[in-house]
Amino acid sequence: MAVADWLAALDRRAELRAKAGLTRRLHPRAAADGVVDLAGNDYLGLAAHPEVVAAAAQALAAYGLGATGSRLIRGSTEVHHTLEETLADWLGTDRALVFSSGYLANLGAVRALVRPRTLLISDAHNHASLIDGCRISGAETVVTPHADVAAVAAALAAAPGRPAVVVTESVFSVDGDLAPLARLHATAREHGALLLVDDAHALGVVGPDGAGAVAEAGLTGEPDVVVTATLSKALGGAGGVVAGPAEFVRHLVETARTFIYDTALPPVVAAGVQAAVGLARSGAGLRAELAERAAHAVGRLRAAGLDVSAADAAVVSITAPSPEAATAWATACRDRGVAVGCFRPPSTPDSRSRLRLTVSAGVPRADFEHALEVIVECAP
Amino acid sequence: MAVADWLAALDRRAELRAKAGLTRRLHPRAAADGVVDLAGNDYLGLAAHPEVVAAAAQALAAYGLGATGSRLIRGSTEVHHTLEETLADWLGTDRALVFSSGYLANLGAVRALVRPRTLLISDAHNHASLIDGCRISGAETVVTPHADVAAVAAALAAAPGRPAVVVTESVFSVDGDLAPLARLHATAREHGALLLVDDAHALGVVGPDGAGAVAEAGLTGEPDVVVTATLSKALGGAGGVVAGPAEFVRHLVETARTFIYDTALPPVVAAGVQAAVGLARSGAGLRAELAERAAHAVGRLRAAGLDVSAADAAVVSITAPSPEAATAWATACRDRGVAVGCFRPPSTPDSRSRLRLTVSAGVPRADFEHALEVIVECAP
Repeated sequence: MAVADWLAALDRRAELRAKAGLTRRLHPRAAADGVVDLAGNDYLGLAAHPEVVAAAAQALAAYGLGATGSRLIRGSTEVHHTLEETLADWLGTDRALVFSSGYLANLGAVRALVRPRTLLISDAHNHASLIDGCRISGAETVVTPHADVAAVAAALAAAPGRPAVVVTESVFSVDGDLAPLARLHATAREHGALLLVDDAHALGVVGPDGAGAVAEAGLTGEPDVVVTATLSKALGGAGGVVAGPAEFVRHLVETARTFIYDTALPPVVAAGVQAAVGLARSGAGLRAELAERAAHAVGRLRAAGLDVSAADAAVVSITAPSPEAATAWATACRDRGVAVGCFRPPSTPDSRSRLRLTVSAGVPRADFEHALEVIVECAP
Repeated sequence: MAVADWLAALDRRAELRAKAGLTRRLHPRAAADGVVDLAGNDYLGLAAHPEVVAAAAQALAAYGLGATGSRLIRGSTEVHHTLEETLADWLGTDRALVFSSGYLANLGAVRALVRPRTLLISDAHNHASLIDGCRISGAETVVTPHADVAAVAAALAAAPGRPAVVVTESVFSVDGDLAPLARLHATAREHGALLLVDDAHALGVVGPDGAGAVAEAGLTGEPDVVVTATLSKALGGAGGVVAGPAEFVRHLVETARTFIYDTALPPVVAAGVQAAVGLARSGAGLRAELAERAAHAVGRLRAAGLDVSAADAAVVSITAPSPEAATAWATACRDRGVAVGCFRPPSTPDSRSRLRLTVSAGVPRADFEHALEVIVECAP
């Protein structure tokens, strides 16, 4: 009877979501589905780059599939060690530590930054993993309006003498706009606070040698800045990284639950990402192409009368009139061979539904242009 | 100044850990390090099995390295879909859902089981990911003494009319002992509660066709049981799975933050795990070898006067007199070419430090026997 009640309650919630246009369904794709991908996060087209695949294949043959244990037991290989040294060098930090996902990296980083009485100041548009990191840390958290430096300053001023951490994405995942990192850092430093930046959508895409938005903002190696990122977007693989002062990374190794009690990233993935970092660092041409495409997409979509976000990196967001309209729009695009993201509440930080496009240098130019036309033609 | 204070505080905490013998260090390994591995979780030796590696290599060539997006955007491939159908068939549940790690699977599963006023009843020896799942769910959580069915019954009886979930591992990761699953389920059902079982260290190792401890306990397909597991232990890969009633898995797809907002498991990993499932299901000989080796290890180590756990599956725990002694013991073994786990507080649920051995059918028998002698000879 209790079980029947539970299942019935789950059914009722699914029906409510369906009525609100918020049903989510999985759409498994084939290996070569011929779809023009403006939905994935493979910004530089490195996931299937021959050098990335070759490096991964070599590690697969050498190590086998899985890491066979947590990082502190048998899961750390020389591939992980080399990747961490390379990432620290690229990001300009003392050390970098690889987690098995960006989600777990953020959970670990936020919690490890919390000391007794710490105040967390979290941007209203932050990613779920940062929000969960704040929650699981148990620290008092103030959510400030999106990209509002004055609100951050006010929150810091209201907590004098307390340790504080300002938590933000650099390129926000939903709208693709850039946080005011330099001003956030100046404000944090003025109040003796630390700054945690999730650079997931900027790493490889912006900054000198693609080192991300933290580097672009001139904050490389600042001892009061901790950077997190995924290895699954521009780097085409999987996993996450936390980079910062040596003392902090040692603290993560010795105390971060999502690092210690988790199976390590497979060596095959770490090796592929290692190759991708090399390609990304020398990928100025890819980044120029990306920036030009993003600007072009914004121009074309605005010319069609659509409400389009700023697109500071490679994410472009288009407002849809309703969740149902967003779903229908994305479905119509998919039916015409174009994959676009469909973001609806609660995945959006406001009440608006959106199409979310990601620009990739890996998509042939003609396909990209065609996809923009399909999006315009399918607009509600 | 604030930064210097922070770094100094991190240094002081590291010094305190060092004084207590609780320093943790990474030891990256080479691909063919010649070490006899009694520390990893590759119980069936499948991580480097030729069929697993070949299946992974094929998917790597077909899909590239990463999944390029979250499961609901571009991250679901036909490989994921097939793996989920195979896992559901093996586990005897309506559906199964693959997460990018076991940690994230547990966070997602616990939270998704929580309804308003839900009481969580969590075993004292549960894994960090289950504990964090309870914390992040926000639900009231009662921690019951380890494997204590009467305490679970009392906690349920004290909360009449409230939704409740009993949360347990099957084979506990530290000591390798088996939870009283059949009695826990009977107790849960009597009170209309659900049972969540993390079968990570049992899947592939025990049960009919290796289907795990839930199957071994006769609970296959019970609608009030949700099973989680990792794909990174006996299956030699990475990732996690949640399996249960179709209504619940749909609920996860549509609401679980650690599923929705996370890059999908790389297809290369999913494909290798798919091959590993086939080998594990038909691996009765490997399981017989494992059980014989575990019993043999317990006998040999006890004969040497060591305090050894029950070893209900393939994990064997040996008490060490102190954290320092555990570290020295493990280091001495490693210096002689034998890798063993070294578990110290806070990774142990009581105050005791341990060596933790994992028995693997993939280690040559002579090496396994030699490793047991090394462990005995290095004992403090």
